[in-house]
Amino acid sequence: MATKVNRQWRLVSRPVGSIAESNFEWTQEPVPTLGEGQILVRNIYLSLDPTNRGWLNEGENYLPPVAIGEVIRGFGIGVVEQSRNVNFPEGTLVQGLLGWQDYAVTDGTNLSEFLKDPSIPLTAYLGLFGLIGMTAYFGLLDIGKPKVGETLVVSGAAGAVGSLVGQIGKIKGCRVVGIAGSEEKCRWLKDELGFDAAINYKTESVLESLQQHCPDGIDVYFENVGGEILDAVLKLINLRARIVLCGLISQYNATQLVPGPYNFVNILIKRAKVEGFIVLDYFNRAQEVLADLGEWYAQGKIKYRVDVIDGLENAPRTINKLFNGTNQGKLIIKVSEE
Amino acid sequence: MATKVNRQWRLVSRPVGSIAESNFEWTQEPVPTLGEGQILVRNIYLSLDPTNRGWLNEGENYLPPVAIGEVIRGFGIGVVEQSRNVNFPEGTLVQGLLGWQDYAVTDGTNLSEFLKDPSIPLTAYLGLFGLIGMTAYFGLLDIGKPKVGETLVVSGAAGAVGSLVGQIGKIKGCRVVGIAGSEEKCRWLKDELGFDAAINYKTESVLESLQQHCPDGIDVYFENVGGEILDAVLKLINLRARIVLCGLISQYNATQLVPGPYNFVNILIKRAKVEGFIVLDYFNRAQEVLADLGEWYAQGKIKYRVDVIDGLENAPRTINKLFNGTNQGKLIIKVSEE
Repeated sequence: MATKVNRQWRLVSRPVGSIAESNFEWTQEPVPTLGEGQILVRNIYLSLDPTNRGWLNEGENYLPPVAIGEVIRGFGIGVVEQSRNVNFPEGTLVQGLLGWQDYAVTDGTNLSEFLKDPSIPLTAYLGLFGLIGMTAYFGLLDIGKPKVGETLVVSGAAGAVGSLVGQIGKIKGCRVVGIAGSEEKCRWLKDELGFDAAINYKTESVLESLQQHCPDGIDVYFENVGGEILDAVLKLINLRARIVLCGLISQYNATQLVPGPYNFVNILIKRAKVEGFIVLDYFNRAQEVLADLGEWYAQGKIKYRVDVIDGLENAPRTINKLFNGTNQGKLIIKVSEE
Repeated sequence: MATKVNRQWRLVSRPVGSIAESNFEWTQEPVPTLGEGQILVRNIYLSLDPTNRGWLNEGENYLPPVAIGEVIRGFGIGVVEQSRNVNFPEGTLVQGLLGWQDYAVTDGTNLSEFLKDPSIPLTAYLGLFGLIGMTAYFGLLDIGKPKVGETLVVSGAAGAVGSLVGQIGKIKGCRVVGIAGSEEKCRWLKDELGFDAAINYKTESVLESLQQHCPDGIDVYFENVGGEILDAVLKLINLRARIVLCGLISQYNATQLVPGPYNFVNILIKRAKVEGFIVLDYFNRAQEVLADLGEWYAQGKIKYRVDVIDGLENAPRTINKLFNGTNQGKLIIKVSEE
């Protein structure tokens, strides 16, 4: 068998502010011969997520930083092409931290096998039926604990997670108000996904629009963004509001320390709860989410969209779409054919 | 019966920054004749608490602001001297929002009767066996949920609430580190109250000292202060840390918006929980606290101190002791003889 070439994106310098393509190096190396217990995974889809940005910083994060010279860390889906590991026979579909490369050689640590439902496209396993779906589901229901009739506000509402959060909120009987960054996104939230209201933070005063669309105050806030939007929400929270801190994308590219919310004292006055949430902690409960989301999807109650960009070589210039808001749904790089 | 004179402190202007005596007016009026259902309470002790400051601002708080011209709101202990209310016969000891005045005329709303244990001084009912004790007890145990072997950090540790929080933390098997504002206070915390360590934030780097005294990180933080101390703590919190947001005294006198903690993102990274807490929500559970605190006090496991200043006329100039840290224990104004 001819030696396969593994194209890889490696970190050469840590981004200051937004990711620049020059922070990465495009390298090639032959795929090594497998050792006992190892498998060779051909990567098919690579998930681009806001959290990737944090892994490139030097500082401590919930995972160790990507080291200089290392392949960029990323979650993806692939298929086992060669195996010296009985747990992962050839042909097995796997998901996990496969990295920004054509092939991953691994002993299977941090990978999990999954069975594809023939009626569900493979990309959905990086979205609705993957980490994104789990993030929305457990973040909203376990941390946010929305009750029928309560008002739920979601920032980053047109994003992969936010759009699911809002729809699950509607299923659970909440009034749902989304905050997004364009008229097109706001229309999609209202007209297609059934949000009660959507606020374009680029053209509206978020505080005034929230006051208008949340006449009974805010009970649950699902936070993907941070900054001024968080401050506006904190002004309007009700007694015992729950704030699910899932992301703070507005500050991931910051080059200096960003202050916390100026209305922090309202957490005290309103006896509110702010709780950090990372989906990694919920892996052992994946079956719960698949059952509910699968049912809602089959009933047409949940819609989602994916934004698939072809070619591993395009990953560095594509990831900034998450930060400038030009992605149209869950952002995915197609690395090879299914 | 000669008409009694009621001396009162009334709000004439809202403080900008620290409370100035000129914000208050010292007035006198005759005690009115009681209407049906009313009682006349002679105030004995008036509790001075950091939360009093917030009530003087115009903005929304957890209670409505004191209106211009109104008697200053304050919690206190008094005795019923006249009664036209069968629920409060003459001689009954009561506690509640009696206000900065010699006498309160009320229908009993927001007052509660209490039975004094002859072995416990009356002032203790404004401290250990009152709102202060309940605040420390429920805030730490219900919100902070400390476990044996965990590290608890308390700010405002030599204050009325903080000193109890630390002692309860020791009873519950925690490593307890207090942050206070003088060498004398730090010595008291360590030598008298059994704290494992105490940090003088006026002379030490709080971050460096916390790193030294919390080698296993911070699991529970009881927050009375805010500002830079909160930021230092957030840098060192462990996974799933609990932050009890009980007070933010460092910003109560602020004349402009104060930013939230710069390390806010660590709440997300560490999946920590920040929860606001106000003791008003726990009134119906007062018996629990009295049983436990009473037992611990009788066993000598809990110590506390009170700082009693004589004379209602001294209330305005005394309350700032809370903010400059010159009080030596629970700050109380003695209004009349027991």
